[in-house]
Amino acid sequence: MADKRPTVVPFEYDISKNTLLVLDQRELPHKVTFTAIKNCDDGAEAIRNMSVRGAPCIAAVACLTLVVDANATIDKLSSLSPNEFKSWFQQKANTLKNARPTAVNVVLAFDRLAQFVDTNQGDIVKETVASLTEFVWQALRGSLQRNKDLGQFGSHEIIMNTEDNRKDKLNLLTHCNTGFLATVGYGTALGVVRSLHSNGGLEMVYFTETRPYNQGSRLTAWELIQDEIPSKLIADSAVASLMASHQIDAVVVGADRVMQSGHTTNKIGTLQIAIVSKHFNIPFYVAAPTTTIDSEPSAKPCVIEERSADELLKIKDLQVGPVETKVWNPGFDTTPPELITSIITEVGICKPTEVERFMSIHKESGVDAQDFYF
Amino acid sequence: MADKRPTVVPFEYDISKNTLLVLDQRELPHKVTFTAIKNCDDGAEAIRNMSVRGAPCIAAVACLTLVVDANATIDKLSSLSPNEFKSWFQQKANTLKNARPTAVNVVLAFDRLAQFVDTNQGDIVKETVASLTEFVWQALRGSLQRNKDLGQFGSHEIIMNTEDNRKDKLNLLTHCNTGFLATVGYGTALGVVRSLHSNGGLEMVYFTETRPYNQGSRLTAWELIQDEIPSKLIADSAVASLMASHQIDAVVVGADRVMQSGHTTNKIGTLQIAIVSKHFNIPFYVAAPTTTIDSEPSAKPCVIEERSADELLKIKDLQVGPVETKVWNPGFDTTPPELITSIITEVGICKPTEVERFMSIHKESGVDAQDFYF
Repeated sequence: MADKRPTVVPFEYDISKNTLLVLDQRELPHKVTFTAIKNCDDGAEAIRNMSVRGAPCIAAVACLTLVVDANATIDKLSSLSPNEFKSWFQQKANTLKNARPTAVNVVLAFDRLAQFVDTNQGDIVKETVASLTEFVWQALRGSLQRNKDLGQFGSHEIIMNTEDNRKDKLNLLTHCNTGFLATVGYGTALGVVRSLHSNGGLEMVYFTETRPYNQGSRLTAWELIQDEIPSKLIADSAVASLMASHQIDAVVVGADRVMQSGHTTNKIGTLQIAIVSKHFNIPFYVAAPTTTIDSEPSAKPCVIEERSADELLKIKDLQVGPVETKVWNPGFDTTPPELITSIITEVGICKPTEVERFMSIHKESGVDAQDFYF
Repeated sequence: MADKRPTVVPFEYDISKNTLLVLDQRELPHKVTFTAIKNCDDGAEAIRNMSVRGAPCIAAVACLTLVVDANATIDKLSSLSPNEFKSWFQQKANTLKNARPTAVNVVLAFDRLAQFVDTNQGDIVKETVASLTEFVWQALRGSLQRNKDLGQFGSHEIIMNTEDNRKDKLNLLTHCNTGFLATVGYGTALGVVRSLHSNGGLEMVYFTETRPYNQGSRLTAWELIQDEIPSKLIADSAVASLMASHQIDAVVVGADRVMQSGHTTNKIGTLQIAIVSKHFNIPFYVAAPTTTIDSEPSAKPCVIEERSADELLKIKDLQVGPVETKVWNPGFDTTPPELITSIITEVGICKPTEVERFMSIHKESGVDAQDFYF
């Protein structure tokens, strides 16, 4: 255990020392505790007990865990035949994949790793492990870089759309947590905020509490304090009031999924903010890596998950409302394209009416061939 | 202490037995506890410790407390001269008025009581106390009746505006707590819901959590369960999602103040719901007794109170967000007339563009002469 402050990632991986420290997000914002992950059992436990959350972050920690385990036991692994190593790899991958049943990214990531092993494996296991380590390390750096690219595109777009009539520092509003805690580092919508701040263009970012899970007041608040980004928390119900009484230059939110029709699905409350933004004529941006955009126009709309009543009726063990209260608690909502100014990706800006064309150009460019699901 | 369930009031006053039981709202929704108020010290304490909340409710409990104290000590008071009784009255009134510094209704109510004593006092104190008791009792019944009238006007208006194209049971949405707990009984916006329900016209009422103080999940939830009114709690952020996915026929909210310009000030979040209602073309009603409507067109707009950061960062003693988090936490917001379908009062329906004319007709009718500030 360590008590260090992270700067851009929810974990610290040192390739030269073969160490992996994972931030225990369950303890946030009250305690900053890192847990050392030494083998696949440690890694699976950190995923299972939700120290690690967010699909990209889970996938990254799972892949890094396997690499750390392989390097730590390299002397033993060196005596294995290529086929025996493949069995070892599959067994460890299964342990990590099964730690949380619904994490799709981690399954896709291990498929990609298995494919890499198949293609690159020589006779000497030690060399296979070395090239696998380098591959995961590059994927990690690539993912971080893609978030930074998205941040740059986004902050540039926001400045371009407001520079005619505005002072040089802008006020933004964001929702939920889309920062380094939800990704492998830097963030998506919060990455745009971070980018604008590091370019000296941010006056203040307002962020919502994000009921019922309080991702805003627990996680975004903590992240922004770590990076000393000027910020203020508001209640989810105060968005319209904020826009009526303050100069808000742009809203930027994340997306769990973008359909080619330009409909974006994100944390509950996003649609409401989009409608209110339209009312006050404030640009509304969706920050979405191309991995979250449907590759096919025919994909079916999301089924919105309805979550438990207790999320609204309790805070930890504290009962707030009567236990008999009936609740409607959807986890997400869908914002139609007419409420979205543009979609910010790591390869550029996409109009919500042109997602299909944008994705087909993107596919042809072959950029997504390196995509690694985190 | 008793453990009885109230039906329409946050206190139980029995004029024949001279007893007053006050529901301890601090314990809701977990415990239903009534405290017996036997004298002015008991009453002042119940107001001070916030067992009693809501300006009309505080004023009513204060007046009833004085009446109960007078009747309980009637043998002693009978020996007083009219002037000595007036001194006794003023001293007790001061104790009750000073229990909470900002309760305006209670000051106005005692002014009205003092005026009644001045006008009606004879030589015999016992008779003065008897007529004062009757006066307060009638005021209480009048206030309850006015809430019921408002409820009837409101449910009728909502049905009238939807009957062309709808089934016979309606789905409503409300915000905050405007029920019997916030008034002397029955409620304003929640009184409209209650009225529609008792006429068999309510399918379901959705109500918001109402962060940061959770009046919805704590108080409205509890009230609706008591009255077995079909209801569902939603997060404040789920309003747009609800309207996009469910048939919502009308929104009805309360008001702390209505200006003659048709601007209404109410709990934070109201403006946002009004904007979203407009987007989905859903009628948006403000239930406001004429006591909350400005009597002069020139009255200044409200200064919106900014409340403490802890309301957002803590739930009771449980710290949710980092203590260093900066917060913008306005208690109220103001909804402009163009977002309001109509204003529902106890004397009829008022278009938000015609408040001045409505109030001048209302004044001329002399109905408000009986107005008693609760």
